[in-house]
Amino acid sequence: MSSHVLDMLTIGNSFGTPAMREVWSEEARLRRQLDVEAALARAEARLGLIPAEAGDAIAEAATGDFDLGAIAAEAARVMHSLNATVHALQHAAGEHGEWVHYGVTTQDVVDTGTILQIRDAIALLRADLVAVATALAHLARTHRDTPMVARTHFVQALPTTFGFKAAIWLDEILRHVERFDRAAADVLVGNINGAVGTYASFDGRGREVERGTLELLGLAAPRISWQSSRDRIAAWTSTLALVSATLGKIATELSTLMHTEIGEVEEAFTSGKIGSTTMPHKRNPALLEGAAALTAPVKHAAALVLDGMATVHERDAISWRAEWVALPEIHQYLSAQLAGMGRILSTLVVHADAMARNLDLQGGLLLSEKAMFEIGRVLGKQTAHTIVYDAAMTAAETGDRLEHLLAADPRVAERFDEAQIASWLEPREYLGETGEAVDAVLAGYDAAGLA
Amino acid sequence: MSSHVLDMLTIGNSFGTPAMREVWSEEARLRRQLDVEAALARAEARLGLIPAEAGDAIAEAATGDFDLGAIAAEAARVMHSLNATVHALQHAAGEHGEWVHYGVTTQDVVDTGTILQIRDAIALLRADLVAVATALAHLARTHRDTPMVARTHFVQALPTTFGFKAAIWLDEILRHVERFDRAAADVLVGNINGAVGTYASFDGRGREVERGTLELLGLAAPRISWQSSRDRIAAWTSTLALVSATLGKIATELSTLMHTEIGEVEEAFTSGKIGSTTMPHKRNPALLEGAAALTAPVKHAAALVLDGMATVHERDAISWRAEWVALPEIHQYLSAQLAGMGRILSTLVVHADAMARNLDLQGGLLLSEKAMFEIGRVLGKQTAHTIVYDAAMTAAETGDRLEHLLAADPRVAERFDEAQIASWLEPREYLGETGEAVDAVLAGYDAAGLA
Amino acid sequence: MSSHVLDMLTIGNSFGTPAMREVWSEEARLRRQLDVEAALARAEARLGLIPAEAGDAIAEAATGDFDLGAIAAEAARVMHSLNATVHALQHAAGEHGEWVHYGVTTQDVVDTGTILQIRDAIALLRADLVAVATALAHLARTHRDTPMVARTHFVQALPTTFGFKAAIWLDEILRHVERFDRAAADVLVGNINGAVGTYASFDGRGREVERGTLELLGLAAPRISWQSSRDRIAAWTSTLALVSATLGKIATELSTLMHTEIGEVEEAFTSGKIGSTTMPHKRNPALLEGAAALTAPVKHAAALVLDGMATVHERDAISWRAEWVALPEIHQYLSAQLAGMGRILSTLVVHADAMARNLDLQGGLLLSEKAMFEIGRVLGKQTAHTIVYDAAMTAAETGDRLEHLLAADPRVAERFDEAQIASWLEPREYLGETGEAVDAVLAGYDAAGLA
Amino acid sequence: MSSHVLDMLTIGNSFGTPAMREVWSEEARLRRQLDVEAALARAEARLGLIPAEAGDAIAEAATGDFDLGAIAAEAARVMHSLNATVHALQHAAGEHGEWVHYGVTTQDVVDTGTILQIRDAIALLRADLVAVATALAHLARTHRDTPMVARTHFVQALPTTFGFKAAIWLDEILRHVERFDRAAADVLVGNINGAVGTYASFDGRGREVERGTLELLGLAAPRISWQSSRDRIAAWTSTLALVSATLGKIATELSTLMHTEIGEVEEAFTSGKIGSTTMPHKRNPALLEGAAALTAPVKHAAALVLDGMATVHERDAISWRAEWVALPEIHQYLSAQLAGMGRILSTLVVHADAMARNLDLQGGLLLSEKAMFEIGRVLGKQTAHTIVYDAAMTAAETGDRLEHLLAADPRVAERFDEAQIASWLEPREYLGETGEAVDAVLAGYDAAGLA
Repeated sequence: MSSHVLDMLTIGNSFGTPAMREVWSEEARLRRQLDVEAALARAEARLGLIPAEAGDAIAEAATGDFDLGAIAAEAARVMHSLNATVHALQHAAGEHGEWVHYGVTTQDVVDTGTILQIRDAIALLRADLVAVATALAHLARTHRDTPMVARTHFVQALPTTFGFKAAIWLDEILRHVERFDRAAADVLVGNINGAVGTYASFDGRGREVERGTLELLGLAAPRISWQSSRDRIAAWTSTLALVSATLGKIATELSTLMHTEIGEVEEAFTSGKIGSTTMPHKRNPALLEGAAALTAPVKHAAALVLDGMATVHERDAISWRAEWVALPEIHQYLSAQLAGMGRILSTLVVHADAMARNLDLQGGLLLSEKAMFEIGRVLGKQTAHTIVYDAAMTAAETGDRLEHLLAADPRVAERFDEAQIASWLEPREYLGETGEAVDAVLAGYDAAGLA
Repeated sequence: MSSHVLDMLTIGNSFGTPAMREVWSEEARLRRQLDVEAALARAEARLGLIPAEAGDAIAEAATGDFDLGAIAAEAARVMHSLNATVHALQHAAGEHGEWVHYGVTTQDVVDTGTILQIRDAIALLRADLVAVATALAHLARTHRDTPMVARTHFVQALPTTFGFKAAIWLDEILRHVERFDRAAADVLVGNINGAVGTYASFDGRGREVERGTLELLGLAAPRISWQSSRDRIAAWTSTLALVSATLGKIATELSTLMHTEIGEVEEAFTSGKIGSTTMPHKRNPALLEGAAALTAPVKHAAALVLDGMATVHERDAISWRAEWVALPEIHQYLSAQLAGMGRILSTLVVHADAMARNLDLQGGLLLSEKAMFEIGRVLGKQTAHTIVYDAAMTAAETGDRLEHLLAADPRVAERFDEAQIASWLEPREYLGETGEAVDAVLAGYDAAGLA
Repeated sequence: MSSHVLDMLTIGNSFGTPAMREVWSEEARLRRQLDVEAALARAEARLGLIPAEAGDAIAEAATGDFDLGAIAAEAARVMHSLNATVHALQHAAGEHGEWVHYGVTTQDVVDTGTILQIRDAIALLRADLVAVATALAHLARTHRDTPMVARTHFVQALPTTFGFKAAIWLDEILRHVERFDRAAADVLVGNINGAVGTYASFDGRGREVERGTLELLGLAAPRISWQSSRDRIAAWTSTLALVSATLGKIATELSTLMHTEIGEVEEAFTSGKIGSTTMPHKRNPALLEGAAALTAPVKHAAALVLDGMATVHERDAISWRAEWVALPEIHQYLSAQLAGMGRILSTLVVHADAMARNLDLQGGLLLSEKAMFEIGRVLGKQTAHTIVYDAAMTAAETGDRLEHLLAADPRVAERFDEAQIASWLEPREYLGETGEAVDAVLAGYDAAGLA
Repeated sequence: MSSHVLDMLTIGNSFGTPAMREVWSEEARLRRQLDVEAALARAEARLGLIPAEAGDAIAEAATGDFDLGAIAAEAARVMHSLNATVHALQHAAGEHGEWVHYGVTTQDVVDTGTILQIRDAIALLRADLVAVATALAHLARTHRDTPMVARTHFVQALPTTFGFKAAIWLDEILRHVERFDRAAADVLVGNINGAVGTYASFDGRGREVERGTLELLGLAAPRISWQSSRDRIAAWTSTLALVSATLGKIATELSTLMHTEIGEVEEAFTSGKIGSTTMPHKRNPALLEGAAALTAPVKHAAALVLDGMATVHERDAISWRAEWVALPEIHQYLSAQLAGMGRILSTLVVHADAMARNLDLQGGLLLSEKAMFEIGRVLGKQTAHTIVYDAAMTAAETGDRLEHLLAADPRVAERFDEAQIASWLEPREYLGETGEAVDAVLAGYDAAGLA
């Protein structure tokens, strides 16, 4: 019986991928904590802090089966979240059990276990982030020269290409890949230094124990305890929030372009998909909305992690729990968002015909800027702005064509005739350097070596 | 030289109204604090705690001119935000100055002064909130029977009316008026009870001093000190955030309906307004965007006030300052948002012709639900959903008309002919009980007695 | 395998009570949706929209067993969250199944089902909120005259009583009870009005169907569809966030008072409770921290619900999902927080001896205000502030006693001797009107009739 | 008349430094926009897009005096925030004015101007960030061996040193310096590419114009327009929020250590500083609280910038304004926070005597872990935990000394006598590898070459 959307059978997959749910499952959480206890025992055995055979026995015992229900019952009894796990491992290790969890504190094990979960999450997220980049690169390349209308303030502005739009998104994602990789390297640091971080319980061998344990786990060792320093984790989740914000923006824009009246793109339709229980004709941007919906919860969860940086003294259980809540959320929401967007973008239906239709919707009005620059060459730009502004406003009110109205202005008529003016207003001739910019981004994509 | 948008000459009016800026100005802040000191002196004089003539003299002095620059310089020197004000008033009161600020603490004066500013803000906000309700009521009444398409998931869904849409917004605003009035009554409570709220400095007359002072100021008296209880203020700003969220939603939706391809409404165009420095034809939803933009800052500022509830012990200067930052922001942003929306809604251009055009855009496909119900009467609803779903999906793929495809289904053809089916698909015949619902909301508006 | 803390066996109970988890469980979610379908069928049968026997059959079928796993599998196939449930009910209702879900849309059922879950949650939360009030009333009454030091800006300020502190918290909670009750009444409104809220699918009987269905469910009916108006839900969760902020503040302050060096209160210690896996002596404020930790996630989840008010057009699946995430979170976190605080406050150990010790810690320095007022009577208050300020600063630097230093000032010595000054500095004589204020709050508590 | 705390004479300096206020002032905003117009004109003249003399004339005119009030009045009239500025510059440039703002759009100038303001802010912030690091390095070095008690969950845990605590903070700040430098490099990119980013208005020379203009301004050029990509700015402000969270944590912890009962540190006291208007003895952590107070507003403003990433289509004025509000706030709040913390930390009074007193407060109980490990050597760690736990709980209840209670346990007494046990409990002998860790962090500080 699950109560959170992440764990619901019917709707959970809209909020996290099965693979990422596995990474953050209670079983995996326990397993990663046992991994830490095992590595600790091995490292301490190597250094002679505990008997050599205890190291092996504990590490071996840590791979066994544990009864999560029994551990939970014991945890409830002693009102402590890790103690029961330690006892279970101690019991499993038999006579060597006394050497389990030697010298460390709860937070060493829980935090380092969490970092191992983050490590597992990173592998999944990065692959899906690259898939999004690849899909965008394909769209940018394919539609490098597919003209469409650019919109500012919700209103048609000037021509652009769909490839240019996709390349802007790709460039943003490529920057995120760099931020992701840097933040990932920053966060993969464990922490094994005892009750208040001073290594006092390790007989002077604490820093060696820490290095040894973390080396076995494939994590870096810190310069000093970070029990009360949650900045690495917050920097990591802040980065994920940025990624999520970009994905949400793209998903929302694609949804907007799916307005029946605009219809320039379409989420690939799967046969059998139901849009509405009562409106059979509906073909909704269901996956797009699902992806767009995940940005807000990621942002709020990331803000919660930031709040969690406010540790009191050497440790507290107030700020810490922010991470317990938020880390599984952020990684799972983002996993579903990345997977969803990868799927959507790689199968997106682009209606170049609708783009063309919308581009011609306003007649020449769309190219008012172009007319302004042409007129500006001879009359000056500010004067031209005034002339074209007046004509454009009249066109909007009356529906008359811009070239006609401009040709009626004596200042313009002195130099240009209506046919000449009309020739300026062809949107496909006013795509600027979109192609070069797309190429520059694609070159950056190729250079990043992601594919 | 101002550095915050609220105080900028060029763009400040997009973020707050001049009247609301005045309420939260530094001068008004000082004035309201002096009002508190004056009322305190009068109340204490009446009770005999300070000499009768001191009460009059201080109250009189408090209405004089004060040099804000000099007070600021002194405040910087002693590193205390109110002490310099007290000294200035003491000086202005001459020999009676010794009785200024008698028995109270800084927070008594600052908090009660803030509540007076909120009182002034409430009057402004409520008038503009009512104006929004009135404009919506007018739209709902006028367009009670103006058909348009309803959209779910960005896609055309079924017919509705513009009046129905406006009535839904109005109903939401009417609920806000009730919440606003309740929260306003809740927050207009002053606080005069000394250093740690115990009234110890008032010789056993503290509760009388408090009641007397607050009565003079037109505020209610608390049961017990609320120096460390900021819930009333947070409840107030939470309510304002709800109002702002509704306004932002309406503004965003109207902006969306202004897409060139949709074009169903238009923000009234003022001659001379510039849409773009480089695209003369642009007629942007400038005021709508300006209004929509204010919800996010209001929400974040309201969240900041909520954080400020975390007072430590009897008082601290950490949580308190959250209010100093956020209260002027929230009230000002909301003032501009309410004023903007009142203006936009009362002059909104509704393009009933575009609504009609969009309603017919998909041919009969829009009425698939209606067809499903008609067929469902004889074949059962779930069966009908399947039949109509298949036909609708084919229509979407092929562009064929729904009535034609349905008539081709033998199960349907057995009972209905194509003309009969086509008769179901007239959108203006499928407006349900929109009119009754609009009337119910308008009756609620009338009953609220706001106009 | 659960991945969210709310659903974890080992730590879930720190984040939600079992009873509240049950309310928000996937099974309960399904059940409440079936309750809505059942009531709808009954209401429609009464009105003759569907056959009378279909109403009974569907309502009966809705109480049967359903295979959540199978429903989930079907939901995944059709990519729709409710359709599979409707199909399962249709199947269970046999020949009458065609009349299941007649005329309504997914959102009608999901939203009204959610309101039923909120109704169940309200009953649980209110009982625990009252329990907190009762525990605080008991503390306020018991410790009405237990002196302790009040602290402002982290530093000892003046004497107060523990009962006064508790009464301030109680007063805040009593205000929350009022807000809670109002917001609960506001939110318990269902919604049954079809695809886009127009009742078009009900053959002109839609408003009757809605009233009838909601009456059977014990919910109020709206004036107009609120499918796109989420303000009631957001107002409700905003109110819960206010409650949570107060609880968090109290929990944090009590934790602070448990500093070893302060030691004025103690969370009741349960034998067997483990403070630390490595520091056997630790007696941590474990429950207090657990309660304090829940405010931040509640606030962020409430902010997410506020974001969810930004519905696009008549409905979208972006903003809506914010509620799916946040509602189970907020109610569960708050359930654990209220239950925890009720337990903590009703068993709190108050160390009146430590309070007394801390009250005397600074010698007479704590009563500098009192000395100022006594001296102020004859020399004026501002002059007295200067004299006492200088003496107090010297005392802080030198450790000399305040009465001695004041008596050394010739202006003071002229009127008072050191013994007289010392008599002013007895903290237990400077409790002001704390008792009266406590009594006023307790009278309010009694009048509220909660017990 | 200012209405926002940032611009208030009396309290503004608590929220921003004068130098940073200058960077974000409306005058500086205008100046930076004029700088962009000047560089644009020069670059276009070099490329022959506009007459060579126009480039010089415009650049020259842009350095002149402008009447902000007149610009504001004109902006209000045309309802556009930049047009009036362009007109003013056009007028100032006389006959060359026609070539002002040639080919660009408002957002090019406003965004690139904002990046120039960020550039100016970076210089100020980095110097103050380094000053904080330097002050912490000094504290870590000076107090490398100053013993104090470490506290977990608000309760005394084990010995540590003040230098260790400072070194943990320093390590966190050093990571922030790296993040700051990376994010600064990331954000210093301008944008000059016309109405919808396509360079269409530059006659095929757009990318050259962009590079040329930005080179003159000392900014990098983008691969593709970022008008709709706000990720760099959000990544920058996210980084600043992380820095602010660390500063807030340190300030709050130092405030907590200033509790009268703890008294281990003290904010340097400035003669003449007023703690309270009514309690002359108060020596509050005024600067600490002022610094701690700034984290919450920075975090909320950073969240607002994140929201601003949700650009609609090629540009909108909804998301954009989030930056107009938040950027001046974040940079100013952080400036005051960094400056405050630099001042506080470099003059912090460390009461080593109070640290020593608190360290001895509980007798040997503090060293329960040490006793557990010593006993654990012979009896096993888990067994030892049980023995010491029981003794410690008894000690806490009875006040009896730990060594006495342990010696009374037959399992312990068999191996150790009370004197031997007592010898374990000396806190200054249990500082672990704090010194080595401090040295490692200081080595990192030295290697960073900040000083």
